Amino acid sequence: MSANLRLGGGGEFDRLRRIFARLGRTGRDLGDDCALVRVGRAWLAVSIDLSLEGVHFRTDWLSFADIGRRSAAAALSDLAAEAAAPIGVLVSLGVPGKGRGRGKGEGDRAAEIMAGVAAAARSVGASVLGGDLVRSERYIVDVCVLGWTTHPVRRDGARPGDGLWVTGALGGAQAALRSLTRGQRPGPALFRRFAHPEPRIAAGRRLADLGARAMIDISDGLAADAAHLAAASGVRVEIALEQVPCFRGVDRHRAAASGEEFELLAALPSRFRERDAQTFRRATGVPLTRIGRCARGSGVRVTDSGRSIAPPAGYNHFPAR
Amino acid sequence: MSANLRLGGGGEFDRLRRIFARLGRTGRDLGDDCALVRVGRAWLAVSIDLSLEGVHFRTDWLSFADIGRRSAAAALSDLAAEAAAPIGVLVSLGVPGKGRGRGKGEGDRAAEIMAGVAAAARSVGASVLGGDLVRSERYIVDVCVLGWTTHPVRRDGARPGDGLWVTGALGGAQAALRSLTRGQRPGPALFRRFAHPEPRIAAGRRLADLGARAMIDISDGLAADAAHLAAASGVRVEIALEQVPCFRGVDRHRAAASGEEFELLAALPSRFRERDAQTFRRATGVPLTRIGRCARGSGVRVTDSGRSIAPPAGYNHFPAR
Repeated sequence: MSANLRLGGGGEFDRLRRIFARLGRTGRDLGDDCALVRVGRAWLAVSIDLSLEGVHFRTDWLSFADIGRRSAAAALSDLAAEAAAPIGVLVSLGVPGKGRGRGKGEGDRAAEIMAGVAAAARSVGASVLGGDLVRSERYIVDVCVLGWTTHPVRRDGARPGDGLWVTGALGGAQAALRSLTRGQRPGPALFRRFAHPEPRIAAGRRLADLGARAMIDISDGLAADAAHLAAASGVRVEIALEQVPCFRGVDRHRAAASGEEFELLAALPSRFRERDAQTFRRATGVPLTRIGRCARGSGVRVTDSGRSIAPPAGYNHFPAR
Repeated sequence: MSANLRLGGGGEFDRLRRIFARLGRTGRDLGDDCALVRVGRAWLAVSIDLSLEGVHFRTDWLSFADIGRRSAAAALSDLAAEAAAPIGVLVSLGVPGKGRGRGKGEGDRAAEIMAGVAAAARSVGASVLGGDLVRSERYIVDVCVLGWTTHPVRRDGARPGDGLWVTGALGGAQAALRSLTRGQRPGPALFRRFAHPEPRIAAGRRLADLGARAMIDISDGLAADAAHLAAASGVRVEIALEQVPCFRGVDRHRAAASGEEFELLAALPSRFRERDAQTFRRATGVPLTRIGRCARGSGVRVTDSGRSIAPPAGYNHFPAR
């Protein structure tokens, strides 16, 4: 399997991961953000990302356009983590019949979702290539993304001594979700963070140019995704919690557990320093913060002001589910 | 939109088709089986196909492996209609939690579905490239297919005077569905036809080599898909119902209305004759039957032994829905 597989937690799913690995030609790439298909001197990077009503979104929290935009951004984030330039997206929609949707026809709602998908695609130079549409009981938005890369960055290239860096600020997505779950409307900045995530395409490509050895997008939470990178690369990842950049008002423990952040976690050679991060920020508009390093060993070690703590738990979509 | 869009019937969906057309760069390819991405001298053909429990399959009719196999075959059939050679598939699965599935864990059921997908992919030289897995209330199998072609065959190339040909024999899929809906188990051949459709990959590529000018796979029903080909090509399609090859025991009216047949309908130049069809059959093992021709005009004209009849209605998945 040269595969991107995003699997939830639990023993059943761990077993499934092994079964999937046997299906493919090679288990080497299992679990990376994108599958890669060699084309001449380049690689076609492909990934698929299923967003479901009640799991990834609720129609009383987001507009249909936001649902489309967020679902597409989540899929495009996998291309960012591969340092790929987006080509286009294909979208399968499941849309309920006339019984639902606040008086709107299913065509309206599907068109609004697609307008959001198209906006996310256009924002990174991609187009909507195709789609499928089926009537279903609940909303379904499945987005397949295609991109090109000449130098893919996988999860498995980190080496002991590399610095560990993260783009943006973490914790906003989960904080917004917590407000929404309590029936409160988050403030505008927090809501935008949840509703309109920006796939870090330009940032990912620049990190590759700057020598990134391994990269992953933060979908399961910083600590959980750091563990995936550590396992794939055969290194230990050390994170200093007090260095983690936090979204305004979010504490660092929550920031390190927050999923669906769609920021990038990258291992960069030790020669990459703070002044390089400043140059990166000027070029891309995206902050880049050193939060730790890679060492010999395995797993993730998280410290808070020098003291070891248990890695903050990963992300299971809606807390109340 | 250089797009594949499979839309159901009804005014809402017609309107949506127009909205989708505005999203893309060009409306020209809208509605074709695959979207095409130019890569050097070749084309990457991509398509996505959403199969839902209760719409496309039921778990009391098909094994989980059959559900995966049928869903993947449906998607691969779009590559066949484009005369593309499959590269691989990406699959998003929605699988219910422990409350459902006859005592099996969700990992078992997801693994069985993936085994079926992998079998369909392997049968045409493709591999499983990646996937996503989410817990959902009902089963979801969304398959994105990738293939290569140097000479894509679209729906829009038929010309007046071309012969109209169809692979295989029609009506089996719908006859099996009718039995299952009545609570009866179809005979083995009929059940196999429904559960294990074979994407006509080799047949599609050979038809392209033989000069096919337009091609479409029969997913909505012969008459409905002939109308799509006629509209895209700007020709009238004339079908002689008595020439339509029927699955054993199925009458020709039902055969011409039967959907999800995954056979190919092709417009071939008039120089292509019966003896060429015999050669085709020897090479591919697939029957090829002339059922009509293309003429100046628009729409579909169906005759039964010389008398005009109304085109048999298209296919709306489960009859009782």
